[in-house]
Amino acid sequence: MSQRRMGATSLSQLLGQWHQENSRTPVYQQLANGLRQLILDGRLPLGCRLPGERDFSSLLDVSRTTLTSALALLREQGYLISRQGSGSITLLPESSPAISPLPGIAPVLDLSAASLSAGPEIHHAYSTALTALPEHLSSTGYNSQGLLSLRQVIAQRYCSRGLPTDADQIIIVNGALNGLGLVLRLLTGPGDRVVIENPTYSVALSTIRGALCRPVAVSLPASGWDVEGLAATIAQTSPRLAYLLPDFHNPTGRCMDEVTRQRICDIAAASRTALVVDETMVDLWFDKPPPPPMAAFDKADNVITLGSASKSFWGGLRIGWIRAPRKTINALIQMRNTFDLGTPILEQLATIALLNEAENFLPQRRNLLRQRRDTSFAILSEIFPDWKTSQPEGGLSWWIELPKAQATVFSAHAESAGIRMGAGPRFGVDGAFERYLRLPFTLETPAMYQALKRLQPIWQQLMEEPSERTRNIIV
Amino acid sequence: MSQRRMGATSLSQLLGQWHQENSRTPVYQQLANGLRQLILDGRLPLGCRLPGERDFSSLLDVSRTTLTSALALLREQGYLISRQGSGSITLLPESSPAISPLPGIAPVLDLSAASLSAGPEIHHAYSTALTALPEHLSSTGYNSQGLLSLRQVIAQRYCSRGLPTDADQIIIVNGALNGLGLVLRLLTGPGDRVVIENPTYSVALSTIRGALCRPVAVSLPASGWDVEGLAATIAQTSPRLAYLLPDFHNPTGRCMDEVTRQRICDIAAASRTALVVDETMVDLWFDKPPPPPMAAFDKADNVITLGSASKSFWGGLRIGWIRAPRKTINALIQMRNTFDLGTPILEQLATIALLNEAENFLPQRRNLLRQRRDTSFAILSEIFPDWKTSQPEGGLSWWIELPKAQATVFSAHAESAGIRMGAGPRFGVDGAFERYLRLPFTLETPAMYQALKRLQPIWQQLMEEPSERTRNIIV
Repeated sequence: MSQRRMGATSLSQLLGQWHQENSRTPVYQQLANGLRQLILDGRLPLGCRLPGERDFSSLLDVSRTTLTSALALLREQGYLISRQGSGSITLLPESSPAISPLPGIAPVLDLSAASLSAGPEIHHAYSTALTALPEHLSSTGYNSQGLLSLRQVIAQRYCSRGLPTDADQIIIVNGALNGLGLVLRLLTGPGDRVVIENPTYSVALSTIRGALCRPVAVSLPASGWDVEGLAATIAQTSPRLAYLLPDFHNPTGRCMDEVTRQRICDIAAASRTALVVDETMVDLWFDKPPPPPMAAFDKADNVITLGSASKSFWGGLRIGWIRAPRKTINALIQMRNTFDLGTPILEQLATIALLNEAENFLPQRRNLLRQRRDTSFAILSEIFPDWKTSQPEGGLSWWIELPKAQATVFSAHAESAGIRMGAGPRFGVDGAFERYLRLPFTLETPAMYQALKRLQPIWQQLMEEPSERTRNIIV
Repeated sequence: MSQRRMGATSLSQLLGQWHQENSRTPVYQQLANGLRQLILDGRLPLGCRLPGERDFSSLLDVSRTTLTSALALLREQGYLISRQGSGSITLLPESSPAISPLPGIAPVLDLSAASLSAGPEIHHAYSTALTALPEHLSSTGYNSQGLLSLRQVIAQRYCSRGLPTDADQIIIVNGALNGLGLVLRLLTGPGDRVVIENPTYSVALSTIRGALCRPVAVSLPASGWDVEGLAATIAQTSPRLAYLLPDFHNPTGRCMDEVTRQRICDIAAASRTALVVDETMVDLWFDKPPPPPMAAFDKADNVITLGSASKSFWGGLRIGWIRAPRKTINALIQMRNTFDLGTPILEQLATIALLNEAENFLPQRRNLLRQRRDTSFAILSEIFPDWKTSQPEGGLSWWIELPKAQATVFSAHAESAGIRMGAGPRFGVDGAFERYLRLPFTLETPAMYQALKRLQPIWQQLMEEPSERTRNIIV
């Protein structure tokens, strides 16, 4: 396993509010539940060595016996392995609830992923692609920049959004996240700082950590972006790059205005900081389209844009792209040999068909999402009247403020009941957002209603005095 | 750019035999050519800082002025950028010959990649996949372990090769190289040692270096494998894992016998070293099928097997898989969130169709390759009678021993004439294999003949006294 070691301070920050004062659940079980949740949702990486018991127990303010019992329970459940001289190392049990539901429980309902199923245009696009395939079959199929014809269509879309772009400025990758990984490998080394919005897209955060970079958080204010905070953070920490989601930010659903785009581009230019802008959600707007791409405000070639077909079209297409200055694209093409050897040809051909037809079906997709946003808001208001949220301008989910900072405990209980949740701390650093949940509105309305109804008693129990029944659910 | 810095000693080792004693090409140009070749074929990573000029020039035994002139030339050609206080950093020029041919030169003929074009079965497989697609369209398309139906077919193939395997022991990835990257991310950290065969598959070497691991070489003897050398290297260096190609080793085309497989598995078990076995070429045998998979000799769950559809079927399908113990697979599934979010559904369905039909078209593919191997051998013997090689038992290429250690210079000249070559040092560490070339026999015979004919005068010039014409080709 890897040599990563988690310090006692970092891990206790990550654990956040694991302890419920008046609970009848023994403290060691609560601690084990908190750690298990961190492992399950990937905030505590697999193969990571836990801190020494003496330091860790004193920082957590629990007895050594409590900590030992918690670790013993996790070992028994298959979440830790202890090796002589190496301490305890995180892993997943052979049949992990992250993969299959717990035995005897209804199939897992996944409220942690925000994604729609495919529309009829997907099958049609693949059929079109199949007719275009034969001319590519005489090649070896390896193509590290991606098909020129696809890059041209993508470049054209940037042009029509107000950003002159040439096909040479595009590389096709296996999804936006794969693109982020490639950019990180090119621009960063272990220990480098990467500025993120806090909260941010949880999987991007895992990717940044997976590249052994240190995320440096700039908190999002109640609305918009904290431009001064970003400038100060860049000045103070000299990050290698900043990863931003201006177009229907995930998880909050907000959109950055033109003035802010310009100011942030200017800050990046002055400090020569690369801005990596993830536009995955850009097509999913509800009321009005977003301003021109961030890169259109960039006079200094500092912006690298990540695009994706996964949310606009379908997640089962694993296609994304990177738009960047030509020099960066050339370097990325070569860097790719350390990563993968290109993107499937047929997927690229299908994406051409989809991009060509996009304006015929995207309006309908936006309508569908707008409806689901509105009906899910009505259901939420009825079932959880004390939850607060604000209307997302685009994207796929609600960012919900809970009346109590109990998101981790809540989602641990929900997981045991077969519902996977996106607890707030997954979207932030240092255990922040214990008071938040991300809730996608991508499910069809009956399924959404059913899921929220199943969550209702779990939440109510948490809000009330802890009882014997709560303990049973936790165990 | 990244913080990697290349030490003077490492870089001069990497450069190997860059200097031709009696050449009329100025020394600074020869040095620039050598460095350019390292950048072009990826041995000198992009974004890498060159060593300080004082140390570097003294190690290379050239004057400071020579080094400065060489670096100036590379800067002018776009292969280096110099930043105040950061020294010289490698990059690729905007229009790089690694991507497009040099202006005014015939299109590049690529003899560096070993891969076939697609047979008629590929289009047929995608058509079959398209009829199976609709049942998957109601899902979000994200599937981090891969389709169960594909994993079952793959597991069944391992069973029929003598290795009992369950679908739970498989994860589908985007090609074997992507699988290697995922395994490296799980099992290693920066600076960890990874044992490799020397020579080995060049792209795997880039992937290992890209993961910031240190390759530790065990040289291949004239035939077979050096089991004692492997055991001693493992004992002395405590590597995290060893990456091996027992089934038609790339680039040598040899196959490991059963006794050696058993001994290496026993060594790995005794030292608890993970063996990562790349079976990409396993279907491409000429005379007899290979022994059972390496993992069949493993009693201690130490072997992780990488499989691929790229060589058996087509490189334009980006499908690979990992077979490993269940615990490792579960950890890889979670690790994948730091990498990509899964493999395209349709590609997986097409691979099912191909695996089901494989025994109907693989024999023909093997025949084709056997013929190309034999005719290319005849052509090679005619045009380059002083080159030596031995018959590969499988795979796609010749590993050729040249009469002079000039592979890097030869391939630099060939590149300028529009032919990309796989110079030996790409397949090894520390500048080894200057006397070797990898030459794929995947081209159709007329194209192969034409390519070798174009190489003939370039090689002859190199063998003779250097002349004014050689200089012109180099410049």
